[in-house]
Amino acid sequence: MEEQKKILCVGLVCLDIINVVDKYPEEDTDSRCLSQRWQRGGNASNSCTVLSLLGAPSAFMGSLAAGPVANFIMDDLLARAVDASAVVWQVKGETPCACCVVCPTTGSRTVVLFDTNLPDVTAENFSQVDLRQFKWIHWEGRNAEEQLKMIQRVEEYNTSAPLPQSITVSVEIEKTREPLYRLFPHADVVFVSKDVARHFGFPTAEAALRGFYPRVKQGAVLICAWAEQGADALGPDGVIVHSDAFPPESLVDTLGAGDTFNAAVIYTLSNGGSLQDALTFGCRVAGCKCGFHGYDGIGERFSK
Amino acid sequence: MEEQKKILCVGLVCLDIINVVDKYPEEDTDSRCLSQRWQRGGNASNSCTVLSLLGAPSAFMGSLAAGPVANFIMDDLLARAVDASAVVWQVKGETPCACCVVCPTTGSRTVVLFDTNLPDVTAENFSQVDLRQFKWIHWEGRNAEEQLKMIQRVEEYNTSAPLPQSITVSVEIEKTREPLYRLFPHADVVFVSKDVARHFGFPTAEAALRGFYPRVKQGAVLICAWAEQGADALGPDGVIVHSDAFPPESLVDTLGAGDTFNAAVIYTLSNGGSLQDALTFGCRVAGCKCGFHGYDGIGERFSK
Repeated sequence: MEEQKKILCVGLVCLDIINVVDKYPEEDTDSRCLSQRWQRGGNASNSCTVLSLLGAPSAFMGSLAAGPVANFIMDDLLARAVDASAVVWQVKGETPCACCVVCPTTGSRTVVLFDTNLPDVTAENFSQVDLRQFKWIHWEGRNAEEQLKMIQRVEEYNTSAPLPQSITVSVEIEKTREPLYRLFPHADVVFVSKDVARHFGFPTAEAALRGFYPRVKQGAVLICAWAEQGADALGPDGVIVHSDAFPPESLVDTLGAGDTFNAAVIYTLSNGGSLQDALTFGCRVAGCKCGFHGYDGIGERFSK
Repeated sequence: MEEQKKILCVGLVCLDIINVVDKYPEEDTDSRCLSQRWQRGGNASNSCTVLSLLGAPSAFMGSLAAGPVANFIMDDLLARAVDASAVVWQVKGETPCACCVVCPTTGSRTVVLFDTNLPDVTAENFSQVDLRQFKWIHWEGRNAEEQLKMIQRVEEYNTSAPLPQSITVSVEIEKTREPLYRLFPHADVVFVSKDVARHFGFPTAEAALRGFYPRVKQGAVLICAWAEQGADALGPDGVIVHSDAFPPESLVDTLGAGDTFNAAVIYTLSNGGSLQDALTFGCRVAGCKCGFHGYDGIGERFSK
């Protein structure tokens, strides 16, 4: 029953309050937005949404604190058929909330996040999870020290489990924070961001892949998306694979485009697709997503 | 039992999500805020909070749409002992929500509001309200056409009621919108904003009072606050009354300072205080409020 196994994404879930404006507000002014919507956000949580819309059973693991925001988030996970049984209910702190300003005329998305007082998921929490239900586990790099312990548990599980039962591990290294770089050698698939690449002085995705590849473990795949220049990937054969971007006719909403790319890549690879197929599908779904608000349009266009 | 009568404020209630930042975010960036809090907002609703904290029984009338935001707001009205029985539950639209960015280092407050799809309170709604429970009704100028009809109902009530039962009417003309200027001649107390004054080319509060006074009804009081320059008022005796501002030692949160001023002025006048007392108290409470987040500090410092 390999097909029934789920993809688990571990990381942040938050409430995104998305204000669509015709012009980015100047400091110390009052303005009305064109529209506003509440949307479940967070990288790992967004990737779960996209996996579900593409037709892959997905599960989310992250922290919540009881209250109106958590109620909204749990309702939405349910509506998207994302398994939320691994959610960790914290007794301290508040559920993170991000105020986002999306400006379609410039294509910008500005995010102010508050996530500073809710504890992250720990290795202890993760030890309660039954790994047999998953074929793939993806970590959004956050509390790297704890996340390394979680990955270690999966490595041990994989060593003891028969091969068709083993779990593929992927990580996303998006933020330029030193501890996150320790995740490089511990995943089968590593997503490294343009931000991190540029922070290290790499001018292109290809340069970043060549530069970072010595950090990943043997046999791993390293992937780097570069906005409108598409995405590149490098596997153990040493050949750089590339896909151009697929920009929409008009740019409407770029929020979550990166999480969409990750989900579409994981979706393809977890179904046995090639690296080139995964990259192209990732760019296609992410590009298309930028042409509409939210994620609903993905289901209509791409689900099988 | 005149003392038991309440002050009703009619206008907007919304959820303010207040992000405190150390620097106003640049467009198309991701940033974390120092803190975030949810607060009931809206001019009329804020004024109710302050009236309650000062010790005056207050009631709020405005529109809400059922959902998590409305639940939050109703809980908060209850916690502040603001009578919410006149709230109008709309079946269309969403409860307004504002994302606010407060930057203590510059003293700025930037507000992006979404309130475009919830119907305002109508004269028909207002006709259901038992006027005998109020000694003062304050309108935040919004849907002026309907609000004029509401005021007309109070004028008729006052004509028939014995004098000690009569209701004082105040209006706030804050936004530079033509229809709101029709409210000038229909209140006993008119608050006109610095924004409106400058829109008409008046360089000072005094100039604005002299310029606008011919628009108010006979015997009315016109009040104009001018931020750090304090506030001025003009009554039927033709004498301009002034109070300096009372800036806090350090500027922390200017959000709702105007609503605080209005409430403190109404509080004083409704208790028989002089125009000078009202203006000074308004400036004192509003200034003090800018020295802390939210409104709680008002109760500690000013309630009798």
